[in-house]
Amino acid sequence: MVDFTGIERVRQLVTRKGTAAFIEELAGEIEADYRRWQDFDKSPRHAVHSPVGVIELMPISDGKLYSFKYVNGHPKNTAAGLLTVTAFGVLADVDTGYPLLLSELTLTTALRTAAMSVLAARHMARRDSRVMALIGNGAQSEFQSIAFHGLLGILELRLYDVDPEATAKLERNLAALNLPGLRVIRCRSAGEAARGADIVTTVTADKRNAIILTPEMIEPGMHLNAVGGDCPGKTELHGDILARPDARVIVEYEPQSRVEGEVQQMPADFPVIEFADVLAGRATGRANDREVTIFDSVGFALEDFSALRYVHRLHREDRASRATIDIVPELANPKDLFALLAERPATVRPASHLRVSA
Amino acid sequence: MVDFTGIERVRQLVTRKGTAAFIEELAGEIEADYRRWQDFDKSPRHAVHSPVGVIELMPISDGKLYSFKYVNGHPKNTAAGLLTVTAFGVLADVDTGYPLLLSELTLTTALRTAAMSVLAARHMARRDSRVMALIGNGAQSEFQSIAFHGLLGILELRLYDVDPEATAKLERNLAALNLPGLRVIRCRSAGEAARGADIVTTVTADKRNAIILTPEMIEPGMHLNAVGGDCPGKTELHGDILARPDARVIVEYEPQSRVEGEVQQMPADFPVIEFADVLAGRATGRANDREVTIFDSVGFALEDFSALRYVHRLHREDRASRATIDIVPELANPKDLFALLAERPATVRPASHLRVSA
Repeated sequence: MVDFTGIERVRQLVTRKGTAAFIEELAGEIEADYRRWQDFDKSPRHAVHSPVGVIELMPISDGKLYSFKYVNGHPKNTAAGLLTVTAFGVLADVDTGYPLLLSELTLTTALRTAAMSVLAARHMARRDSRVMALIGNGAQSEFQSIAFHGLLGILELRLYDVDPEATAKLERNLAALNLPGLRVIRCRSAGEAARGADIVTTVTADKRNAIILTPEMIEPGMHLNAVGGDCPGKTELHGDILARPDARVIVEYEPQSRVEGEVQQMPADFPVIEFADVLAGRATGRANDREVTIFDSVGFALEDFSALRYVHRLHREDRASRATIDIVPELANPKDLFALLAERPATVRPASHLRVSA
Repeated sequence: MVDFTGIERVRQLVTRKGTAAFIEELAGEIEADYRRWQDFDKSPRHAVHSPVGVIELMPISDGKLYSFKYVNGHPKNTAAGLLTVTAFGVLADVDTGYPLLLSELTLTTALRTAAMSVLAARHMARRDSRVMALIGNGAQSEFQSIAFHGLLGILELRLYDVDPEATAKLERNLAALNLPGLRVIRCRSAGEAARGADIVTTVTADKRNAIILTPEMIEPGMHLNAVGGDCPGKTELHGDILARPDARVIVEYEPQSRVEGEVQQMPADFPVIEFADVLAGRATGRANDREVTIFDSVGFALEDFSALRYVHRLHREDRASRATIDIVPELANPKDLFALLAERPATVRPASHLRVSA
């Protein structure tokens, strides 16, 4: 039997620990994995594009564990009451090839993306950062807010979204959370939100070369956390921002980011730094307080690998409600797969695929 | 909620219909999809190799539906009581990116491989074929036996495996099935099994360049159904068999087979025919009764696509025991993913991920 963590189970694991604490621990897992970057068998994700969206597979392995994530991106889904992004994934044992865990990753991806954003900001943003613009107030915005408030000390959030209802929803959710010392300001434009911010987080959904940030919005010393531009033809920053002489661009995995990130707008030899090199001390995240640092985040498979392993550990620790599903046969003789069809009566046992160990 | 067909459910769907009938219908689905070959967005599978095995992802899409299969290949697993090959997969809707079905594919892969073998043999083997050698008597051998007996009229099976217990297991299972008119003969070598056979099916598991069939075993007019050689460094046929002037080699998807199939042993310009061209009438499966036809089967994503769609249809037809799992959130407001964490109490509901509609 393969461990299973569906939406309800992940919700339970996160709420029990607390969202900020969950993101904090997950950031630690992601950091530990980026510190052993050379252990991973890395490849750009496999994408199938359609006129309305993309479906991607993101595999990775460290030689002991293997994981992949299935993730879609369909900006028009929200108009039909569906999510723009949904995801699930699997953690597997490399030695046997057997899956260990099947997990929802929609909720988990929002958490791991926030964890990765904060992890990068810790190495790239100015240490005295207190004000963050948050442009794009959709499904991921609460997670970014909680992470930057709780883990990085942001005390003022400046919100903007083309959809005022999205901003109203974020305001309501933040008010309910009552985060200590946090001031939330609704802005009338991206420019107004960015004005005076130490960090600008963009997390918009349009699948096009959008220009959310224009060159005149950028001030010396800013850190840009560019989350939303994450597939070919989907960017958020004007190219001139990247081309600033005082800009420093850091990516997760260069071969993937060249195709999917903000740097897809730039020549192939445009200089970028891989985040693992910053952690390893081979490169600098920020050289001085005047640089404009840009975390050109697209989401890399390593982060999902870390997240699946972390969720699996929490799932196993709580044995009482550890559910499993029957996606792998259990055979008396492994060469006798046919025994499944031959030896047992065709009883109807609709619930037998679920087991919860007590 | 996403439809779920685990081992128990697929077992139920197959036994209810009957194995041969299931394979027959599935072969029809696969054939229909190969006839619209140009509709599919095709790519070679993504493989992660380790010293003891391989884990692969096999995605494909026809622009309306998308599917992928996760499959491992670990020949040494059987020594530890585990299967060499396990698999599962997902069918998804391209327009929304939402998964529709998560299914076991270990049992289903054995069924679809047998269906594909028979489908190819119908276009490549001599019409009067009655005798088949079956070399490799492991997990897939019963499925090949049932398919070639029931759908192609094979009346004599000549068995060989390096592991006599595997052959004994196959004999027992075939005896229990009591297939009408079928004679089963145990042979002491691959050569003895192949002697006088119309069709030679090789379905062995060793991950190496094994030579299961040598040139002197091959007789004019034979059809070779080479199933086991299916990844880099894993072949079953001596290269001289492929190089025979009277040999005709047919593959599923050329870019993948060049890397994974028997033809990986041959120069890059070695002539091969894609099966879709045979179905479309652009190429011939067999030109005369003296040719040696070789179906260099590696298993292509299209076959799993067909299988997932077929299993999904059977699953939905039987509404009474149609189980689902909660791997995708259902939200009142799709931009409010955080509602999952904010609005509900952290109750423990371990079984809530499973629902069976009645």
